[in-house]
Amino acid sequence: MTHFAAYEELSEGQIFETDEFLVTSRDIRSFAEQYDPQPMHLDEVAAQQGPFSGVISSGWQTLCLTMRLMVDSRPFGDHPLIGVAVDSIQFKKPVVPDTRIRACAAIVSKRKSAKIGRAFVKLKVRTLNADNNEELLTQIWTVMLVLPSAS
Amino acid sequence: MTHFAAYEELSEGQIFETDEFLVTSRDIRSFAEQYDPQPMHLDEVAAQQGPFSGVISSGWQTLCLTMRLMVDSRPFGDHPLIGVAVDSIQFKKPVVPDTRIRACAAIVSKRKSAKIGRAFVKLKVRTLNADNNEELLTQIWTVMLVLPSAS
Repeated sequence: MTHFAAYEELSEGQIFETDEFLVTSRDIRSFAEQYDPQPMHLDEVAAQQGPFSGVISSGWQTLCLTMRLMVDSRPFGDHPLIGVAVDSIQFKKPVVPDTRIRACAAIVSKRKSAKIGRAFVKLKVRTLNADNNEELLTQIWTVMLVLPSAS
Repeated sequence: MTHFAAYEELSEGQIFETDEFLVTSRDIRSFAEQYDPQPMHLDEVAAQQGPFSGVISSGWQTLCLTMRLMVDSRPFGDHPLIGVAVDSIQFKKPVVPDTRIRACAAIVSKRKSAKIGRAFVKLKVRTLNADNNEELLTQIWTVMLVLPSAS
């Protein structure tokens, strides 16, 4: 894993890879009960008759797990991941129980803010099925960096 | 709360309001431990020295709680909220402990899919501080409807 030393060292196309996470039936149920209590996530029988022919994870769960994988991978070292915007979230494939997921982020662009000591980095974040590399979810993050000179 | 009877009854500008939810310190910690374990969400002392001068909720938590509020408000009655895309998520203000939030969604547009029996509705979803109506988070959802004729 590359660690962030300075804004200047970040470059377009630079790639950050995360570890993997196995999404179990229990994870899907636990998340859905709290944040997305709909039959397609909670009720096996109802889900069978729904548009996905079985239980799938909440898209928000896949997003949250992607965040966790990204945080753990520390793309910018000790610098936090401070999101200011997320664009173009596309749910490409449903996440079914026992899918192993991983994420892969690429720097799309970077720019210094008009505010001194701040910068913004855009990342294309892709959540993949770790077993076959199919795209499950893609999104664009805009992350704020607090530059060392400002601290 | 309006209940969805037919695609034809949905109209641009139609508004759906949710209940409120109080975001406690405990909620913020519990979510962050699982999905976004960064000092700005977990460590009061470190957070005081960070860009928000105190603990704030993970933006993903505010998004998930917004989903929960929307699910509970049943904007389309028995029809599920099936997200296919989310655009233009903007974190406008940090959510600090003991903020009461609510959401408000407005139909931006609707269209039938090229695939028979499917339609898409775009919603602008705003998450507000329930006490002063300040915008905390805004986003655009694209939701898929399965039309009764297809079932």
